[in-house]
Amino acid sequence: MTKIALGIDIGGTNTAVGVVDVKGNLLHRFSIPTAKSAEALVAEVKLTYEAIGLKNVSLAGIGIGAPNGNYYKGTVEFAPNLSWKGVVPLAEMFAKHFGVPAWLTNDANAAAIGEMQFGAAKGIKDFIMITLGTGLGSGVVVNGEVVYGHDGFAGELGHIVYDYDGRSCGCGRKGCLETYASATGIVRTAEEWLMKESVSSSLRTSGIITAKSIAEAAGAGDELAIEIFDFTAKVLGRQLADAVAFTSPETIFLFGGLANAGELLMRPLKKHFEESLLQIFKGKIKLAFSALPEGDAAVLGAASLAWHELN
Amino acid sequence: MTKIALGIDIGGTNTAVGVVDVKGNLLHRFSIPTAKSAEALVAEVKLTYEAIGLKNVSLAGIGIGAPNGNYYKGTVEFAPNLSWKGVVPLAEMFAKHFGVPAWLTNDANAAAIGEMQFGAAKGIKDFIMITLGTGLGSGVVVNGEVVYGHDGFAGELGHIVYDYDGRSCGCGRKGCLETYASATGIVRTAEEWLMKESVSSSLRTSGIITAKSIAEAAGAGDELAIEIFDFTAKVLGRQLADAVAFTSPETIFLFGGLANAGELLMRPLKKHFEESLLQIFKGKIKLAFSALPEGDAAVLGAASLAWHELN
Repeated sequence: MTKIALGIDIGGTNTAVGVVDVKGNLLHRFSIPTAKSAEALVAEVKLTYEAIGLKNVSLAGIGIGAPNGNYYKGTVEFAPNLSWKGVVPLAEMFAKHFGVPAWLTNDANAAAIGEMQFGAAKGIKDFIMITLGTGLGSGVVVNGEVVYGHDGFAGELGHIVYDYDGRSCGCGRKGCLETYASATGIVRTAEEWLMKESVSSSLRTSGIITAKSIAEAAGAGDELAIEIFDFTAKVLGRQLADAVAFTSPETIFLFGGLANAGELLMRPLKKHFEESLLQIFKGKIKLAFSALPEGDAAVLGAASLAWHELN
Repeated sequence: MTKIALGIDIGGTNTAVGVVDVKGNLLHRFSIPTAKSAEALVAEVKLTYEAIGLKNVSLAGIGIGAPNGNYYKGTVEFAPNLSWKGVVPLAEMFAKHFGVPAWLTNDANAAAIGEMQFGAAKGIKDFIMITLGTGLGSGVVVNGEVVYGHDGFAGELGHIVYDYDGRSCGCGRKGCLETYASATGIVRTAEEWLMKESVSSSLRTSGIITAKSIAEAAGAGDELAIEIFDFTAKVLGRQLADAVAFTSPETIFLFGGLANAGELLMRPLKKHFEESLLQIFKGKIKLAFSALPEGDAAVLGAASLAWHELN
């Protein structure tokens, strides 16, 4: 019998489920639409899991990564991108339905634990995981443990303010880091600059602008696109330098859609980050990409939460 | 025999030493000029301590709070306000000379541990201690432990940047929080505003401007002084809201010279802090003054480091 954990990644549209052993091998994975009620989702995950009919496995626990996930309570609380209302005790619901223990946290924290168990953060006690997707998520690890804070909601670096008179943020405030440094943020920069500047750029004729199309333009030498990456890297580098002054991590890992730009982002980021660091930290803090395979990282991260708690 | 710890607070001018029991009672204290060499300081502390001739006590350990103190290594590293050069293994020197274990950290971390053991943070697992003195120091506590980071230098919130085009900071960068929110910072604000504004103010005729004289003017109803406090509170409140997004503390404690302004600072601070918080944190995070007696807090904090490690 192989002991397995389920890693469940709850998204606004789809929910992905991975069957993961203790070494981080993904034995199976499936995806179903995120149901309109949490009860229905739990039931559908169970039905689909049982229909696979995996043999010689024994389910040890369930880890869940969910937006607005509260680790302490195992609840999803007022998630803006889900149709579920109020506070949903999702970990308890999964635990009851499957008859095994279940834990829940937000997706960035799950990614941080996944990186620690199965990725590039093995053996690193102090690090920060930054996910650059639609927004900017973060998991802060201090002394080998994720920082959850007194209420389970620590690690909201996407909402550290870069510019108090800056861009409107979905959180209702202005100038949050994620309005600049995320897949959405870099598109906002491109759209703003294309309106404001008259400089020629392949972005003007490339159709719908995405983080990927900006990266392609920059990769092909488009000067405006290169400057857009430099600006994005400056904002992110400055704020990560502040994060270093806070918890002094050994490494900051980047993950998610915008991180796929690779060196187009990393090269200017390292420059701005290093320039912005307080003297005592200069030359000491590494910036690196996550080593988790992108498509599977969310379910691996969620499963790693279960393994982390079970061990 | 009463077990005691020495709490040693190293300052640029004087070094204070407290004899503290495990309950935080200060049995004796003395202060000597900070010697030009670390060797001389250690020897002088020992001579003075022995000259007191305390009876029925047994020395269990030594805790040291020092600028640029590295907890992991027990060293004071390149402290700008001390005449000692380079990296000084001060904890080891004290341990050898006294024959008991010794630990060292920076003064703000020591204050945080003191607050946890002897002050208002008893039983609080997640909090931040902010010391508002010449600079702004901070001790970040997560899950009941001070965050030291990978290199021992975490918790430099005084050097989180408020304004990238702002005031020159002693660290060589611009716009650091402590250039606004500290006893020195509020004086800079007053001096800037008195030059720039033509409004009448009792500060124009009150002689040398200090944090205390600004507080006295504000207390007496001087409008410019009240606005100076409001501005200081706005800068601090905004940056503390960012700190909450990072580690989600239950309480943020204030301590040090500028904190003596009491409600003159706290009232506008609470307003700006609450306004700046991300929605999920609103109404949940307390701001409070330290409960450690001001004159003794540094040596109590340093001694508490020894008790924390001994237990």
